[in-house]
Amino acid sequence: MSKSAVLLVSCPDRPGLVASITDFIFRRKGNILHLDQHVDSEQDVFFMRVAWDLAHFETPPERIAAAFAPIAEQYNMDWRLHFSDERLRMAIFVSKQDHCLYDILSRWQSGELPVEIPLIISNHPDLAPVADKFGLPFEVYQINAENKAERERQQIERLHTHKIDFVVLARYMQILTGDFISHFPDRIINIHHSFLPAFPGARPYHQAYQRGVKIIGATSHYVTQDLDAGPIIEQNVARVDHRDSVKDMIRKGKDLEKTVLASAIWYHINHRVLAYNNKTVVFQ
Amino acid sequence: MSKSAVLLVSCPDRPGLVASITDFIFRRKGNILHLDQHVDSEQDVFFMRVAWDLAHFETPPERIAAAFAPIAEQYNMDWRLHFSDERLRMAIFVSKQDHCLYDILSRWQSGELPVEIPLIISNHPDLAPVADKFGLPFEVYQINAENKAERERQQIERLHTHKIDFVVLARYMQILTGDFISHFPDRIINIHHSFLPAFPGARPYHQAYQRGVKIIGATSHYVTQDLDAGPIIEQNVARVDHRDSVKDMIRKGKDLEKTVLASAIWYHINHRVLAYNNKTVVFQ
Amino acid sequence: MSKSAVLLVSCPDRPGLVASITDFIFRRKGNILHLDQHVDSEQDVFFMRVAWDLAHFETPPERIAAAFAPIAEQYNMDWRLHFSDERLRMAIFVSKQDHCLYDILSRWQSGELPVEIPLIISNHPDLAPVADKFGLPFEVYQINAENKAERERQQIERLHTHKIDFVVLARYMQILTGDFISHFPDRIINIHHSFLPAFPGARPYHQAYQRGVKIIGATSHYVTQDLDAGPIIEQNVARVDHRDSVKDMIRKGKDLEKTVLASAIWYHINHRVLAYNNKTVVFQ
Amino acid sequence: MSKSAVLLVSCPDRPGLVASITDFIFRRKGNILHLDQHVDSEQDVFFMRVAWDLAHFETPPERIAAAFAPIAEQYNMDWRLHFSDERLRMAIFVSKQDHCLYDILSRWQSGELPVEIPLIISNHPDLAPVADKFGLPFEVYQINAENKAERERQQIERLHTHKIDFVVLARYMQILTGDFISHFPDRIINIHHSFLPAFPGARPYHQAYQRGVKIIGATSHYVTQDLDAGPIIEQNVARVDHRDSVKDMIRKGKDLEKTVLASAIWYHINHRVLAYNNKTVVFQ
Repeated sequence: MSKSAVLLVSCPDRPGLVASITDFIFRRKGNILHLDQHVDSEQDVFFMRVAWDLAHFETPPERIAAAFAPIAEQYNMDWRLHFSDERLRMAIFVSKQDHCLYDILSRWQSGELPVEIPLIISNHPDLAPVADKFGLPFEVYQINAENKAERERQQIERLHTHKIDFVVLARYMQILTGDFISHFPDRIINIHHSFLPAFPGARPYHQAYQRGVKIIGATSHYVTQDLDAGPIIEQNVARVDHRDSVKDMIRKGKDLEKTVLASAIWYHINHRVLAYNNKTVVFQ
Repeated sequence: MSKSAVLLVSCPDRPGLVASITDFIFRRKGNILHLDQHVDSEQDVFFMRVAWDLAHFETPPERIAAAFAPIAEQYNMDWRLHFSDERLRMAIFVSKQDHCLYDILSRWQSGELPVEIPLIISNHPDLAPVADKFGLPFEVYQINAENKAERERQQIERLHTHKIDFVVLARYMQILTGDFISHFPDRIINIHHSFLPAFPGARPYHQAYQRGVKIIGATSHYVTQDLDAGPIIEQNVARVDHRDSVKDMIRKGKDLEKTVLASAIWYHINHRVLAYNNKTVVFQ
Repeated sequence: MSKSAVLLVSCPDRPGLVASITDFIFRRKGNILHLDQHVDSEQDVFFMRVAWDLAHFETPPERIAAAFAPIAEQYNMDWRLHFSDERLRMAIFVSKQDHCLYDILSRWQSGELPVEIPLIISNHPDLAPVADKFGLPFEVYQINAENKAERERQQIERLHTHKIDFVVLARYMQILTGDFISHFPDRIINIHHSFLPAFPGARPYHQAYQRGVKIIGATSHYVTQDLDAGPIIEQNVARVDHRDSVKDMIRKGKDLEKTVLASAIWYHINHRVLAYNNKTVVFQ
Repeated sequence: MSKSAVLLVSCPDRPGLVASITDFIFRRKGNILHLDQHVDSEQDVFFMRVAWDLAHFETPPERIAAAFAPIAEQYNMDWRLHFSDERLRMAIFVSKQDHCLYDILSRWQSGELPVEIPLIISNHPDLAPVADKFGLPFEVYQINAENKAERERQQIERLHTHKIDFVVLARYMQILTGDFISHFPDRIINIHHSFLPAFPGARPYHQAYQRGVKIIGATSHYVTQDLDAGPIIEQNVARVDHRDSVKDMIRKGKDLEKTVLASAIWYHINHRVLAYNNKTVVFQ
């Protein structure tokens, strides 16, 4: 397969947007591989993701952004341009539970998640052996009320040193401060073990058991200042009934957490997610 | 098929419960058709549903309750005894939306829901033609803040006159008072158009759209004093994404509402639901 | 909402297709409401569905086809043009089971399926009362080996007389001849009560029970010469287990049949289905 | 938690079965933890799984079988007795794909699958590093038409040497001979990457793509002499549409394969599966 480009656009809706963008690609002899478009007709916002083959494209990759800028300006676009040969750099934060970490690392090793993983960070030493199995650096930052600000400062520095593009909280049991979050807007992916907005906060399976729901869920979302309230990327659910104890729900829920988080990562690294207005457009 | 009996039991858990009940049936030459048992090991509560064939049962149906009473007393049981040839009497409450009403009535007409339907009650005249199509009485009680208590009094009287066993709220857009509910404990089935406890109250599809969830749901529950917070009988969900407007969610949600409510009615009339502790045991 | 147009296109894939079509719309001052595009990269076939607002469109509806024809010719397109104020004319074929018929008619009555229903055809008189409830004409054609060709000839004539656009087989238990099918290519929608290609032909729930599957399904497809082997439009599934008898499977399956068939009709009348190569592209 | 016993029974249905078994437990002062019972009313076969606490049970574990034997004989039962402190010994067979192996081993390491894994067998050396990560022995038996009988003989010997209770084929791409299978009746669990009985045999995702299905699946079953036709233990499905290439289906399908196989193993090691008549009873 030859190299391809992906353009992500959002802007106020106006006639001619699709025509302008596709014409830009066509005139330079690009062949469109995928085009997805969406209009939020309540807010009058236009979204587009278009991927095209660069094999015969007349503008070289490093000059495409400059060539597109005038169109972007004309329509007042927010936009990002990516190329198929880039590999995002992902940091993973974990605590004591290993199921999401194992799942991510085995997908990574088999090529399903083509990213770089420069480091794994934890507030506990427990999962160091897992990182070790996969030959990945594992750094422990034990955190308490006193040292939290200092520890986060150190973590942010490490993330910047490693040129981390996005962070995955794989059942990381520490609440990040607003300051930390502001360094990575729409670039911290969390997995919450409930069907949000039901059961936010602590011990959602216990809450679900107490309430007697017949279906449990998991939700992956971008982290914002409001706990468990950021833009939802993916959700999934599983049936339970009166026979399921909290322990059974935890066991069934782990499978949801693993697959929902992996899907969210996959969408993110394939540049398929546009967050706006505390929601997401996810182009499949 | 010969006549059969169904016994529903809940009581404090103790050794010997299953043995005592099954021995009661076996000694009288009953053959067990289905037996389901559950222990809530947190609360130490025992639940059982057992159905047996009465073909060769040596105790006649009208004397079974008296024969079983000593065992029930010994173990401090809450219990109910039903027979396969009974038909429950169901009242349906509706407002303006017809999809659940059509669905229930067509299932009833094809024999899937073997109940009597002595009356349909509404706070609007709109759905009278639907009741008419199926030859069923339709009574309108227009309700406002002033006449609400009086109207409910009239409705309760009509329900008692018709010996109604249970009430189905098929998208009835009036909140029942605590007084009304107290006449039918665990015998009023509501359908709420969200995945409870997410989005209780008004306009749940609008809430879901606003929050940007990727899955919507419907919940059927017994009505209690707390709005949309009663014991959940059944839930189901459907996928949505950014392309779904509120109108699309409503269309997709209607299918959930219909099937979830119909399932809850089916479980109820087949004596498969035991409510306790604001949860349900639903024997499949 | 103002009137809108929908254009459906399929053709050999070539660079410039999207640009040409969107430019055609933009130059005439049409605003694109939805655009979906797909390329089958194995077969090199391009598919597109584009809907645009006609409020300010400079070409009047009746001249759009002529204006678009040169582009269509240039790219060798198969194409269809529809307008939002058209209502398709649908005939329903039934036998003895009423659940799909009730479901379609109640959706039709509540406005969810905006079509004309000029006639319902059956090989049995049983469901005449249902058609009657909804004030719709019901015609009975009893069929046996001898009269089958003659009966089908009469039915086709009636369908043509009523200018029927498409036919829905709502659990119609007669196999149509190839001759009948050839009059309505990709315009006869069937519901089969299994997860095709598993369990084609007769008594699929019995086959499923015998095989001991843990999930049952329903499939809606366009009818072709090969029994239960036409292009699949929609499928859905439900869990079963060892406790489910054939009768339980039939009951659970009915819900699948109703919703899967209704979805397929909805996609069809909203011009969202393109059949090719014995498969479908269904634009959501 | 104290030690408990699990009794699995199947036999011709007769009145008194449940009473006899529960009486056996009660008289010896056992407290029933779970009781599941099922009657196949077509074949008149009775199935039961009952678990009870041994804390106050008056018969010591090693004498329970002998004490129960007369009842078993009286009712002509097939039966098995297990204790909660046993750990089954599982062998895993793999080829080149690592997703199921990683999934099983990470579940095993986190305690979700409490078994012994004395060895992993493969027909290729590729996955040796995975076994190595988890410190497990990995043996390679390269197989061709000439040496197949001999290699299987060696494998069977190794399985017997290691006292293997059951075998898991985690995407093992070799068809076992009838002779091999006969050594482990209902004790070889396979994962097939389709919704059986659809798409048995080779390359099921390619078959699914070709057929244009809207849902793909995975099936876990006991291996019998007939390829992909043994008793089904568990199935699950995922939605696909025209946008999904074969490669996408493979990616989505892997998640199904992992969770379906893990569920089947979980049911098996918790003594919840009874195979009969080429079907299974799976007590949840």
